Amino acid sequence: MPRFEPKNPDYRAISIQTFEQQRAMKTLGISIARLEPGEVDLAMDYSPDITQQHGFIHAGIITAGLDTACGIAAFTLMPAGAGILTVEFKTNLLAPARGERFAFRATVVKPGRTLTVCEARAYAAQDGVETLIATMSGTLMALPAREDAATDRARVPA
Amino acid sequence: MPRFEPKNPDYRAISIQTFEQQRAMKTLGISIARLEPGEVDLAMDYSPDITQQHGFIHAGIITAGLDTACGIAAFTLMPAGAGILTVEFKTNLLAPARGERFAFRATVVKPGRTLTVCEARAYAAQDGVETLIATMSGTLMALPAREDAATDRARVPA
Amino acid sequence: MPRFEPKNPDYRAISIQTFEQQRAMKTLGISIARLEPGEVDLAMDYSPDITQQHGFIHAGIITAGLDTACGIAAFTLMPAGAGILTVEFKTNLLAPARGERFAFRATVVKPGRTLTVCEARAYAAQDGVETLIATMSGTLMALPAREDAATDRARVPA
Amino acid sequence: MPRFEPKNPDYRAISIQTFEQQRAMKTLGISIARLEPGEVDLAMDYSPDITQQHGFIHAGIITAGLDTACGIAAFTLMPAGAGILTVEFKTNLLAPARGERFAFRATVVKPGRTLTVCEARAYAAQDGVETLIATMSGTLMALPAREDAATDRARVPA
Repeated sequence: MPRFEPKNPDYRAISIQTFEQQRAMKTLGISIARLEPGEVDLAMDYSPDITQQHGFIHAGIITAGLDTACGIAAFTLMPAGAGILTVEFKTNLLAPARGERFAFRATVVKPGRTLTVCEARAYAAQDGVETLIATMSGTLMALPAREDAATDRARVPA
Repeated sequence: MPRFEPKNPDYRAISIQTFEQQRAMKTLGISIARLEPGEVDLAMDYSPDITQQHGFIHAGIITAGLDTACGIAAFTLMPAGAGILTVEFKTNLLAPARGERFAFRATVVKPGRTLTVCEARAYAAQDGVETLIATMSGTLMALPAREDAATDRARVPA
Repeated sequence: MPRFEPKNPDYRAISIQTFEQQRAMKTLGISIARLEPGEVDLAMDYSPDITQQHGFIHAGIITAGLDTACGIAAFTLMPAGAGILTVEFKTNLLAPARGERFAFRATVVKPGRTLTVCEARAYAAQDGVETLIATMSGTLMALPAREDAATDRARVPA
Repeated sequence: MPRFEPKNPDYRAISIQTFEQQRAMKTLGISIARLEPGEVDLAMDYSPDITQQHGFIHAGIITAGLDTACGIAAFTLMPAGAGILTVEFKTNLLAPARGERFAFRATVVKPGRTLTVCEARAYAAQDGVETLIATMSGTLMALPAREDAATDRARVPA
């Protein structure tokens, strides 16, 4: 049984659409592995193109996966027509991002009308063993739906 | 006059080398614009490949630039042979990452034998106007130089 | 010349009043040393009652000073009748909080209608020498003024 | 069965002693409710002396409880003779700290020889109902035991 009740019955389609509009996700090779109300898992294969100086995945790329997981998890609980933006997040790096495949798993901790707080964890899988490599806590903000939202500019607070 | 005195006379060459070994930086189109002891500026052009759903640069990519700026800034002050890894960082997103060009500017706040704390700011430039779009505070860790550091694995703490 | 223009001409009196309503500040011996639009300095004397196991000031108490400095700095820029609450903050501890007297200095980085981002630094003074001991970055939220705000409960989002 | 194996067989006595040496905990009315390897719960009664302007517990005081819970949780897993200090933490405030009694519950996420990462949650209890009011993620640092550690000063890195 899901922990959260979505306000938008169409949450699944709109969440997937929002994810797919993020071209950075395609560039980084990140895809949706699971999507439930308030919970999202993303997956990413290793690629040498996104590594740091030791050949591990760059901490910023790990953060991009965690942030998007948090954003989509928060977005699943928002009302129809809402937009979303990230207010802040902190990443703790626990172990080198070394592996064949990576998972980014986010859950909503506290949904809110304006602000939603999420937590996420990143795992590296290698030789069938999964290791916790990073944690994130972050705040997401809902942008209210507007009939007159003609431009994206209008959807982003100054 | 620089605020910090580097321990490694070869800090400039080794810092540039460490940056260039980060393949993620090349993928994201990030380059070094300025490098002084304890201070690093990076630059990045807009690309649609690294955007989120509104067409702005993804917060994770902004974070990758800020994190690398912090990492190299901290690295300039470390002794010869040291390695470096990121312990944690927090990013606050202040405004949409909309622009033609982006700057990531990091400074060391407190260098240390083991831990170094840095701060960084991200700016978006559009039509000649620069806007502060994000801030980071982060902790970097020096990995001691070892004669027997045969593998990267040995350089990363469990 | 102040960096920010207050919306509330009465910002000084209302900010001092809000500070003085925080009984925790009196308990901790924290007072206002300087107050300008978007900038607040607080001061605190050493007391053994607020120390940790090494006799230094407890990191949580340092954080209480930094958070209040951020909150009042943000509050100076809010419109008449607004309330304020803290969304999140991160504290980096740079050096032991050892000294006779402590200063907490906050500045607004980005004011906003809903969210304001602040940064603050804590300093310890001993034998006339001041040392940077901690940094904070935090997000504050404005609660809109309401004619019907009969209770504090109504002022705090669920 | 505990998740973690303590290195110090005397971990319980030494952890309690370290907690009790923190005079701030006594001033704030915080006590140990549960202590296991890598897990610590603290408890605190409401007091008007530690409130903010709305009569709720000050966010800095909540943070002091969370930080101490993290610190003692990390400390239970450290070797005999080690000291501990807080590197950084982030607090997200989720709901007003309104209640008769408060709990601070910390668990170690990743123990390490030098750095340990913990997470903690704060709850407010009122009329028998418990509400999640804040989360923390933080990094703690072990100071190695030294035979010649004659002074606390020697135990804290510059």
